Amino acid sequence: MKVTIINTGGTFNKRYNPIKGQLEVPADNIALEKIIASCFNVDFEIKTVVSKDSLDMTDSDREEICEAVKNTKNENIIIIHGTDTVHLTSALIKEQKIEKKIVFTGAMVPMSIDEVEATMNFSQALGFLNADVKNGTYISMHGVVVDCSKLVKDRQKGQFLIKE
Amino acid sequence: MKVTIINTGGTFNKRYNPIKGQLEVPADNIALEKIIASCFNVDFEIKTVVSKDSLDMTDSDREEICEAVKNTKNENIIIIHGTDTVHLTSALIKEQKIEKKIVFTGAMVPMSIDEVEATMNFSQALGFLNADVKNGTYISMHGVVVDCSKLVKDRQKGQFLIKE
Amino acid sequence: MKVTIINTGGTFNKRYNPIKGQLEVPADNIALEKIIASCFNVDFEIKTVVSKDSLDMTDSDREEICEAVKNTKNENIIIIHGTDTVHLTSALIKEQKIEKKIVFTGAMVPMSIDEVEATMNFSQALGFLNADVKNGTYISMHGVVVDCSKLVKDRQKGQFLIKE
Amino acid sequence: MKVTIINTGGTFNKRYNPIKGQLEVPADNIALEKIIASCFNVDFEIKTVVSKDSLDMTDSDREEICEAVKNTKNENIIIIHGTDTVHLTSALIKEQKIEKKIVFTGAMVPMSIDEVEATMNFSQALGFLNADVKNGTYISMHGVVVDCSKLVKDRQKGQFLIKE
Repeated sequence: MKVTIINTGGTFNKRYNPIKGQLEVPADNIALEKIIASCFNVDFEIKTVVSKDSLDMTDSDREEICEAVKNTKNENIIIIHGTDTVHLTSALIKEQKIEKKIVFTGAMVPMSIDEVEATMNFSQALGFLNADVKNGTYISMHGVVVDCSKLVKDRQKGQFLIKE
Repeated sequence: MKVTIINTGGTFNKRYNPIKGQLEVPADNIALEKIIASCFNVDFEIKTVVSKDSLDMTDSDREEICEAVKNTKNENIIIIHGTDTVHLTSALIKEQKIEKKIVFTGAMVPMSIDEVEATMNFSQALGFLNADVKNGTYISMHGVVVDCSKLVKDRQKGQFLIKE
Repeated sequence: MKVTIINTGGTFNKRYNPIKGQLEVPADNIALEKIIASCFNVDFEIKTVVSKDSLDMTDSDREEICEAVKNTKNENIIIIHGTDTVHLTSALIKEQKIEKKIVFTGAMVPMSIDEVEATMNFSQALGFLNADVKNGTYISMHGVVVDCSKLVKDRQKGQFLIKE
Repeated sequence: MKVTIINTGGTFNKRYNPIKGQLEVPADNIALEKIIASCFNVDFEIKTVVSKDSLDMTDSDREEICEAVKNTKNENIIIIHGTDTVHLTSALIKEQKIEKKIVFTGAMVPMSIDEVEATMNFSQALGFLNADVKNGTYISMHGVVVDCSKLVKDRQKGQFLIKE
């Protein structure tokens, strides 16, 4: 299987900078690499774009993500994205009606702090793409992978929950 | 979504016993619980059976696993199993032509030692079940979820690889 | 051996709050408890005071720490403190010429992110108190335990280094 | 400060071999290196000898450890050793009345499984050597550093406890 990962930043990637004393969104794929190191049967292409906390993303950043998706030849795409505005970017991608299988994912806690949640969200996306799914724009978080319009961040609970 | 997890033991569950100075397969679900703690949108039923290193499984143990599958009402089943004889148990289950979606998974390194690989293999299975897949018996390991006859453990490399 | 731990906060204690999306200094001893769980031969008393990033500490906070030291009956005291102003608080304590063995410690990276550095700095302090040391005010960081006037934070490197 | 570490193996160093499906005592210093990476103020010399589970150590192995101690020029020595026979090797070293400060340490749980206990035991030893201690043969485990004859492994509890 071939999968393109578009890594746009967000909490998933955050690492602690001991000099500055704060968490940063690095423009690298260290968080991701630890997960895909065990994916012996997948041929990954990784595109690192934007590299921001999603609260700081601009229209121009979202346009850049759209372009990265359109320029991807693989039909399977996983987009790592911050949780705060993943609904905006995924809605924008969905509107484009791109004939691909696009799964957004991310994490509430950085991979550098908790390896379980980030690995789970990403790996759900990968497992979903292993099935013969329809083209569409999905979100993979907290146990489910569904159409991006159906999973919503509950900001009080810190959980993505299926919208009734 | 409703998913029944049948936890049969194997490396996935192993924990170090400092008194005995060795790794043991516990008859509990501690390794699993850490993963499913973030699956807010899934209603899990957990059945703990056999609890053995899969090299030590007997015909009677496999029969017990078969019974657990047959007695499950949910149509989605994830079976956590040791990697050494998962091909035997999954082939046995496949023969029964049970009208369910059954995904075997496990780990090469215990969850208590490396949280990434075990979480990945399990979460792939969960993501796969989120798609509208056909009834069948699958294995979820190392990036892929495929029919159980197609993924084979390479004992020299310590990797599950798709059989050409 | 009896040891009083005065936990004043700082990076050592920081934990990620997924709802707020940031690291916080909690007013609890969770980071510490994981370390002392294996100290079977020490009778600990824990005092939790101030609970701040040390950049935010006021004169009144330092006074509170001083009082906590003076009110301690044990002669062995370990103070967990933020790294940015540990030189100020330790100098203040040293001036008081208290007839106890007082060791400041902390971490450049939160225990919740890297268990090694925080555990090392704390445990050095404990090992030092196991020797028959003179009363004084010390700092335990990055391999050494010395008089608090002799170890200085190099803010470019993020390391505590012995002043030549 | 200069410290020679004589790494003889034991649980402290054990790592899981996924091909063999078991824990092994490697003849390297990976467990140790993660700890000393933050000891910016110590000049370490590392000698890797024997590399065995201490239950498997022979008289000849203990002789080799003795020689390594005698051939060390630094006066500060930390010996990483398995917990099952550390009392035998330390008693042998003590008999030699070597004019150095020698601290045995180790772990009940491998550093690769639990970073806290192993780091604590080692770092206590380092902190103890920072004090102006007498020449002698000590054990550093579970909160204390004392003469090697005074700390005994309670095999039921899995704890090193001070002998009354």
